[in-house]
Amino acid sequence: MRKNNIKRIWAEGGVVLNCFLSIADAYSAELMAHQGFDCLTVDLQHGLQDMGDAALQFQAISTTDTVPVARVPWLEPVSIMKTLDLGASALICPLVNNRKDAETLVQYAKYPPLGERSFGPHRQMLYAGADYPQHANDESVLIAMIETREALDNLEEIASTPGIDALYIGPADLSLNLGFPPGFEPDQPEMVAAFDAVLKAARDAGIIAGIHCGSTAFANRMIDRGFRLVTVLNDGKLMAQASQQVIQNIQRTAK
Amino acid sequence: MRKNNIKRIWAEGGVVLNCFLSIADAYSAELMAHQGFDCLTVDLQHGLQDMGDAALQFQAISTTDTVPVARVPWLEPVSIMKTLDLGASALICPLVNNRKDAETLVQYAKYPPLGERSFGPHRQMLYAGADYPQHANDESVLIAMIETREALDNLEEIASTPGIDALYIGPADLSLNLGFPPGFEPDQPEMVAAFDAVLKAARDAGIIAGIHCGSTAFANRMIDRGFRLVTVLNDGKLMAQASQQVIQNIQRTAK
Amino acid sequence: MRKNNIKRIWAEGGVVLNCFLSIADAYSAELMAHQGFDCLTVDLQHGLQDMGDAALQFQAISTTDTVPVARVPWLEPVSIMKTLDLGASALICPLVNNRKDAETLVQYAKYPPLGERSFGPHRQMLYAGADYPQHANDESVLIAMIETREALDNLEEIASTPGIDALYIGPADLSLNLGFPPGFEPDQPEMVAAFDAVLKAARDAGIIAGIHCGSTAFANRMIDRGFRLVTVLNDGKLMAQASQQVIQNIQRTAK
Amino acid sequence: MRKNNIKRIWAEGGVVLNCFLSIADAYSAELMAHQGFDCLTVDLQHGLQDMGDAALQFQAISTTDTVPVARVPWLEPVSIMKTLDLGASALICPLVNNRKDAETLVQYAKYPPLGERSFGPHRQMLYAGADYPQHANDESVLIAMIETREALDNLEEIASTPGIDALYIGPADLSLNLGFPPGFEPDQPEMVAAFDAVLKAARDAGIIAGIHCGSTAFANRMIDRGFRLVTVLNDGKLMAQASQQVIQNIQRTAK
Amino acid sequence: MRKNNIKRIWAEGGVVLNCFLSIADAYSAELMAHQGFDCLTVDLQHGLQDMGDAALQFQAISTTDTVPVARVPWLEPVSIMKTLDLGASALICPLVNNRKDAETLVQYAKYPPLGERSFGPHRQMLYAGADYPQHANDESVLIAMIETREALDNLEEIASTPGIDALYIGPADLSLNLGFPPGFEPDQPEMVAAFDAVLKAARDAGIIAGIHCGSTAFANRMIDRGFRLVTVLNDGKLMAQASQQVIQNIQRTAK
Amino acid sequence: MRKNNIKRIWAEGGVVLNCFLSIADAYSAELMAHQGFDCLTVDLQHGLQDMGDAALQFQAISTTDTVPVARVPWLEPVSIMKTLDLGASALICPLVNNRKDAETLVQYAKYPPLGERSFGPHRQMLYAGADYPQHANDESVLIAMIETREALDNLEEIASTPGIDALYIGPADLSLNLGFPPGFEPDQPEMVAAFDAVLKAARDAGIIAGIHCGSTAFANRMIDRGFRLVTVLNDGKLMAQASQQVIQNIQRTAK
Repeated sequence: MRKNNIKRIWAEGGVVLNCFLSIADAYSAELMAHQGFDCLTVDLQHGLQDMGDAALQFQAISTTDTVPVARVPWLEPVSIMKTLDLGASALICPLVNNRKDAETLVQYAKYPPLGERSFGPHRQMLYAGADYPQHANDESVLIAMIETREALDNLEEIASTPGIDALYIGPADLSLNLGFPPGFEPDQPEMVAAFDAVLKAARDAGIIAGIHCGSTAFANRMIDRGFRLVTVLNDGKLMAQASQQVIQNIQRTAK
Repeated sequence: MRKNNIKRIWAEGGVVLNCFLSIADAYSAELMAHQGFDCLTVDLQHGLQDMGDAALQFQAISTTDTVPVARVPWLEPVSIMKTLDLGASALICPLVNNRKDAETLVQYAKYPPLGERSFGPHRQMLYAGADYPQHANDESVLIAMIETREALDNLEEIASTPGIDALYIGPADLSLNLGFPPGFEPDQPEMVAAFDAVLKAARDAGIIAGIHCGSTAFANRMIDRGFRLVTVLNDGKLMAQASQQVIQNIQRTAK
Repeated sequence: MRKNNIKRIWAEGGVVLNCFLSIADAYSAELMAHQGFDCLTVDLQHGLQDMGDAALQFQAISTTDTVPVARVPWLEPVSIMKTLDLGASALICPLVNNRKDAETLVQYAKYPPLGERSFGPHRQMLYAGADYPQHANDESVLIAMIETREALDNLEEIASTPGIDALYIGPADLSLNLGFPPGFEPDQPEMVAAFDAVLKAARDAGIIAGIHCGSTAFANRMIDRGFRLVTVLNDGKLMAQASQQVIQNIQRTAK
Repeated sequence: MRKNNIKRIWAEGGVVLNCFLSIADAYSAELMAHQGFDCLTVDLQHGLQDMGDAALQFQAISTTDTVPVARVPWLEPVSIMKTLDLGASALICPLVNNRKDAETLVQYAKYPPLGERSFGPHRQMLYAGADYPQHANDESVLIAMIETREALDNLEEIASTPGIDALYIGPADLSLNLGFPPGFEPDQPEMVAAFDAVLKAARDAGIIAGIHCGSTAFANRMIDRGFRLVTVLNDGKLMAQASQQVIQNIQRTAK
Repeated sequence: MRKNNIKRIWAEGGVVLNCFLSIADAYSAELMAHQGFDCLTVDLQHGLQDMGDAALQFQAISTTDTVPVARVPWLEPVSIMKTLDLGASALICPLVNNRKDAETLVQYAKYPPLGERSFGPHRQMLYAGADYPQHANDESVLIAMIETREALDNLEEIASTPGIDALYIGPADLSLNLGFPPGFEPDQPEMVAAFDAVLKAARDAGIIAGIHCGSTAFANRMIDRGFRLVTVLNDGKLMAQASQQVIQNIQRTAK
Repeated sequence: MRKNNIKRIWAEGGVVLNCFLSIADAYSAELMAHQGFDCLTVDLQHGLQDMGDAALQFQAISTTDTVPVARVPWLEPVSIMKTLDLGASALICPLVNNRKDAETLVQYAKYPPLGERSFGPHRQMLYAGADYPQHANDESVLIAMIETREALDNLEEIASTPGIDALYIGPADLSLNLGFPPGFEPDQPEMVAAFDAVLKAARDAGIIAGIHCGSTAFANRMIDRGFRLVTVLNDGKLMAQASQQVIQNIQRTAK
């Protein structure tokens, strides 16, 4: 079976650089997959994609060694099982707020006896190999999003749930839930304390801490702090930023 | 009828800033339409779009004041007439090499008595208004691509063809056809001479000269030279460049 | 932020005229958006659309001032949050049967501290404006469907739930649940009494009552009764009715 | 092989009632196919459809006995051969202006020895039957559009071309080409004379005359005149007209 | 209303031969529908289809007499109600583990007073007929998947639930849940005992037993055992097997 | 640049085994790409695909080492240039009947100075590599279909055209054009003589002869004869054949 490169990077002590895909297009995903990110995440929660788009984007990413990841829209079985069948090597699940949520995520995402994932990995057996069923439970990566006060209160229990590989901070939602405006580079002391708590819980449990970042500079600071999964923006925002640079630098007055 | 903003900018002596769309996605087009380009060109020649995608992208662009443009894949009636029906306010046509080509373009793109465009502008009557049929011949913009030695030899005849609003240099194809490697910032004397010849022919005929550019710096130089329609790259290349900046600036070594 | 025209009409004491979209097509939605309805509802429950179609139809409607609305398929978080992200200004939610259902709807649809909607309104920040996050809770409209006996028993509690803007009768389902055949112009005394109860509960709570109608005549009667949100059929039924008129009036015998 | 119902109606002396499809949707086509038109025409020239949509719409129509027809975008081989492969039982071809055009249409649309249509009717062998290849030349119907002065000058030659089954007037284009505004119910004497000339040429050649109509009343007048293929508007216009009736009859003032 | 052929075959004592569709394509579904299977199942659980694809595939199947079936992805209301609206005549529901699950399935799938299915069968009223609402509860077929140890413990209760028409064994999931490797032709004594228990429970309740099969030979053995609904593989596996035969039998050495 | 495996096999004296794709689906293409064919041909002429589908299928095939090929619908520039841009490594072009046709094919498919292909290989520079422009003329393979009597009369001129890599017999069209019923295993002496003439012309010109085959047995006979490019049927026919085997071998009588 194809090895999950995210696991290898973490095993070697490295940092996984991720980008989110919000544009529901297969060529756009393929183009991003050629840039050099370690993994790309099809964002079924807030992106424009629906499940059919996800299938095409996983294919597009599969033309390279970039690892295909899905952010599922919710902690519910249909999208968890289907994204795994369609070709996701890792899942980012929103709103894992307590031990039960974490266990439910594992239950939906792992085959028996660990969980109750239903069998039928049609595309995965093409992408990952015919022996995918034997190795899927070991190779698939599960990432629990920490976005609420309740989750902060249950970090240890979540981090120590067998099958959870990483905690991942959604700064905008966490900000909103702690009473701050939504932001991707929060620096309020309470937010910074939350980051540290997530880092500590992950370290204590021997798993990884990750965070969504609004800029390269913020991402580098987070890496310095100890996060080993960082996302920098998404495809659409990168395209918009580059467009802004063009527009601001073109002198639109004729000579 | 909705006025064609490209015409207004040119009438006021300004420069039209364009970007090409190569990604066949409606949200991606809408996102680009909010950035501030004067127009966006659905690239049916080299982009990933087919005609169905073009319809959706014209819709997406129509949520803003950005002018929807099509580059048709060839000088042939089906794509010329259909992109106009679907909502293009301007057309960029490849490989207009002589007077006959220029006249053929006009013939396909204008209603009788100027041309032989067939009647049925279903979406245009929504986008441009119920009086589109009366004003379409005046408001639509036709842009002839100058990409071959033959075209350079016939610049005056092309530029003076009634109905042609602009000449537009495709530097990569022109480079290839003059014996140079394909490039978007050519500086060979023969290429520079060709640029000047296009500028002169356009000025003499009272029309506009435009050029596809590989960077903002090159575009500014071209504007200084007198070009009043400049394209800077496309959506995909802007996204890739911004991704490269991220990737190069992230320090992927864990602390 | 773009103001929600539904709120303005209601504030001015007017009636909102809605039509449902059942055809999963972007041009069809754009065509309907040019007709003059106050809002158009993408029917994810019974229409042919899936979520990808909804995104395209919201775009299509966004080319006009018609307000884009979604009927979500069920009281569940994924479709509620995603339709809001994709561009819905109002939601119609089926089967709101009691206070808890109403509160759950608000919880999913509003950002903290009112609810727990997750942050990521990619397309809304294009459509509604960059300040959408600050104003979304105020501007979005939530409409609870009254379709069961249980809902009739809990009208006051539902209507008084903070965040609920309107009650909306689904006559076919309500008929079925009260033991009548499904119909869009019911006149059984028990149904009429139910209509009055909904009107009264809405008035008492200072919110709006709406109803799905099978004809213009029925809609006018409902407006006379006090309903200020009326839907007349859907795109497909209108097209079929117009087709029937053609077919019945053409004399298909050759002369 | 499935018999072409258009041929049967004409053989029995009847009138074929057609409607154009401009909306590129499969359910919409299926809904129209259940209304009772004799045939439905996927309008690849001015409709929103591209070839992929045509395939789905032919499928949708195939769930009923309504005959699937294509209007191809131009007299060119790709769309003529592909629509026949995909399931069209009849073709309407724009701009057949002279004998050579008519012969070219036959050449592209018929298998050797009559023409040079290439072999590969994958979907037709499902729809029409495994013996489609043997009977396709006999059963497929070819309809030549008469839209220009040149065509009026060559009516006899066109009508007498072996393989042409009907002449079909496009009134809007014909109006434009004769110097009138585009209209679907023209009554200028020159237009009426043109209608009569087409009728006469068709009758003399033993084929059918058809016409695109802007209303039921106009269609009935045309049937009275002798036309035996009439189209009344299209799906989108019917939907818009029905919407207008609703909007104009709803009293949007609250009580 | 169109009669459900599955019911007729069972009433006559026959065996229903089914195939799963995993390829999300309308033509592919139509091609399969012409082969002679009694029914075809759009596999929304493990297939590549999303709900939009299901609509198109139901249309494609509707061009023939083959019965359109959906396997829904989970026991949840959205996909159950929507597939029925879109044109499924029967549903296969995964993971029906106890009486409550079985009753929930019936509740979602049947109109009041039997259940709480919401009214709006737009496409079904085209496919099945205008009187679909009156007969839907009688004609639709509900098939409960038996895939877990819990389900085996509750066979009688499930089988005797009013509205359940068949029990259907998913051998791969049942194998996994009983501690065996996933397989489609299991022969372990415990599995065989499970098959017999399902057969007995179905017989005792006067309903049908069905099973997913990995080969024709296995299917025939299961029919001999008493199963009267057998699925042999799916579209993709059949295509792959046929491709393997070609590849293994071509001698790729040039002469 | 990625090497074209078709060229390598031929250089080593081997036979290229091809299959046609007629189903317009990306997963289906990926599944076929994992079976072991040397190349797969997206059939834009007779398959269900349009250009947008071709892009997705090229992506799907690119997840493997199978070579992506396009059969273009006609000898015309748009589809030839676009399929090459989208990712085809080889083209099969219908109806190459004489020297001029062969030269036109080369002209459209090769960059200057060999031809006039326009520059913009967006996806190819991802698939084949950033140096694609320098090597495209050498690596791309052009295959001319021999399907008419005229082509048989001009075999030498076609085969010797610089840039043409192979002649490829379309037996069904050739049969029709020689007065036989369309078939994929023709054995009439005149057909056999035509096969030999194609083989001889290819050998004399130092290029390859290929043929479309209706069965494995026929393909092996053709390989024995000297053909080094053989196609066996297509995806849909393989799926149908495998389905027939299932259906014929299931005993649908209940025990």
